[in-house]
Amino acid sequence: MTVLILTCDQDVTADMVVVHLNASGVPVVRLDPADLTGGAALSGEYVHGAFRGHLWSAGRLVSMDGLRSVWVRRPGTPATRVAEPSAWLTEESSQALYGMLRSSTARWMNHPDAARRARYKPWQLRLAQRSGLPVPATLITTFPQAARDFAARFPDLVVKPVSGAHPQEPPRAVPTSRVAPDTDFAAVAFGPTLLQRRIAKRADIRLTVVGERMLAARKATAPDADPEEVDVRFAKDDRPWRSSDVPARIADGVRAYVRDAELSYGAFDFVEDADGTWWFLECNQSGQFGFVEVDTGQPIARTIAEWLARPAADRPNRVNGTGTRVP
Amino acid sequence: MTVLILTCDQDVTADMVVVHLNASGVPVVRLDPADLTGGAALSGEYVHGAFRGHLWSAGRLVSMDGLRSVWVRRPGTPATRVAEPSAWLTEESSQALYGMLRSSTARWMNHPDAARRARYKPWQLRLAQRSGLPVPATLITTFPQAARDFAARFPDLVVKPVSGAHPQEPPRAVPTSRVAPDTDFAAVAFGPTLLQRRIAKRADIRLTVVGERMLAARKATAPDADPEEVDVRFAKDDRPWRSSDVPARIADGVRAYVRDAELSYGAFDFVEDADGTWWFLECNQSGQFGFVEVDTGQPIARTIAEWLARPAADRPNRVNGTGTRVP
Repeated sequence: MTVLILTCDQDVTADMVVVHLNASGVPVVRLDPADLTGGAALSGEYVHGAFRGHLWSAGRLVSMDGLRSVWVRRPGTPATRVAEPSAWLTEESSQALYGMLRSSTARWMNHPDAARRARYKPWQLRLAQRSGLPVPATLITTFPQAARDFAARFPDLVVKPVSGAHPQEPPRAVPTSRVAPDTDFAAVAFGPTLLQRRIAKRADIRLTVVGERMLAARKATAPDADPEEVDVRFAKDDRPWRSSDVPARIADGVRAYVRDAELSYGAFDFVEDADGTWWFLECNQSGQFGFVEVDTGQPIARTIAEWLARPAADRPNRVNGTGTRVP
Repeated sequence: MTVLILTCDQDVTADMVVVHLNASGVPVVRLDPADLTGGAALSGEYVHGAFRGHLWSAGRLVSMDGLRSVWVRRPGTPATRVAEPSAWLTEESSQALYGMLRSSTARWMNHPDAARRARYKPWQLRLAQRSGLPVPATLITTFPQAARDFAARFPDLVVKPVSGAHPQEPPRAVPTSRVAPDTDFAAVAFGPTLLQRRIAKRADIRLTVVGERMLAARKATAPDADPEEVDVRFAKDDRPWRSSDVPARIADGVRAYVRDAELSYGAFDFVEDADGTWWFLECNQSGQFGFVEVDTGQPIARTIAEWLARPAADRPNRVNGTGTRVP
């Protein structure tokens, strides 16, 4: 039984996981959908009520029946590395590849439907609330008056994008920033705006979930940190991440979250306040983990490899293809 | 409790359903996501573990708690009708609107995740097989030799796109056509190709599913029909569709299909062979139904209106927002 990794050529994070898979003797096939229909090929046959499918990549042929798991890392856009790429060929190749893989009984990290749904931040916030995780008071609105009322109730606010990265080429992360006290909010009418109560933090938390395992890391905020620096991704502080225990209430909430989100991998961002409460900011279903592993020595890559290497029968999929959901 | 219809202005099919909803006194709000952030607006607040959201469209304000159902008909791309549209504003508006709606407890026709998954034709064919529906022998391949072997076993073939319509503006349906006996198949290497055994048909079947209800229509093939005309959408025959009973085996299969696909609406296309067997071709989760209703007098629009009008508590959603699935 083979592990299929969908990713591009230059992916050192995938390399870290492949090292562990190779060491344990688990067969791995790496395929970049961008290589269809040159360096990669596919075939599937539906005859007499049965399906037999095959993938070919980097000189290796693998049966779709023989997949134990599929890791969707950083796959390229299908069929974009051919001599004459086109939107039509990309669509046909995407449908053929993912349409067949969706019928496989392999376990996914993460299933494409779960991955897509998990990117909706308004949905994340609601699921976090329902999972019992502390969520800072948040408003998403196109009504200037709603923004003004919210700012009157919660005077210390940050603003951040509703979606993730700005869709330019290459995508650019938009930093979270503080809202000035005299902000007028008239421009809210021209685009949905996400306002959130600022948590005065004493640490940032990155909690990585792999299957049932949680690995938390904590980065203490410097005592002299500029209070305008709210976004750890853009902070100048270069103090390292340190392993951290997970409070029981947070562990319960995170377990409920990934179960209902049907995620087998998730990178949660929290901030810790002066009382020690961890406030949910977001869960990135494809969040990077290399920097945490380097700082903390936590075995994230190995844990991912172990999850991918489990036998396929470990958790049967629903017939519709989603199904990392724990029964 | 309100029915929310996401569609564009010019949608006479939606109009047909709205007539029935109005007649039964059910409140309806129609919203085109393209109108964000001008003719439509939204706001959602996450405070103290609770969510309160509102939509505003065509002068009406509706609470997201007060939605009984959401009909995703022909929604425009979010925020494309503003003075200065941009990919960024579209992404932010899409995330805000669908991210909030995904948390609502309303029933969906169809849920965005189910709708997206249902478009994968390779997945459709496998689900149809698993549901016990007869599926013509089919090959999807980029291997010329696999195509040649398949043509040797099944000499009478049609070819059709793996995906649906050609992604030009406006999208164009690509007709299914017969494969000439002397075809070489070398070009298969340049793009996934779907080959399917041609069913010598005596009728086309359109089976429309609305919730648990099935409405089948049949169009007999003219005795002098050109055998090259395999695609009913492009046939010159103007004979009308007639109501038809559904064979018990097909009804069982269709029920299993829509249950596992988590669809509350689906338009199935079958062809009937000389033995009376209905062969599954595809299921279009957003298929048009006006032409069938006009020809047969079947109350499809009214059945959709009745489904949308059911109380929200009729079928509780899972917390992750998908949930047309019958327990």
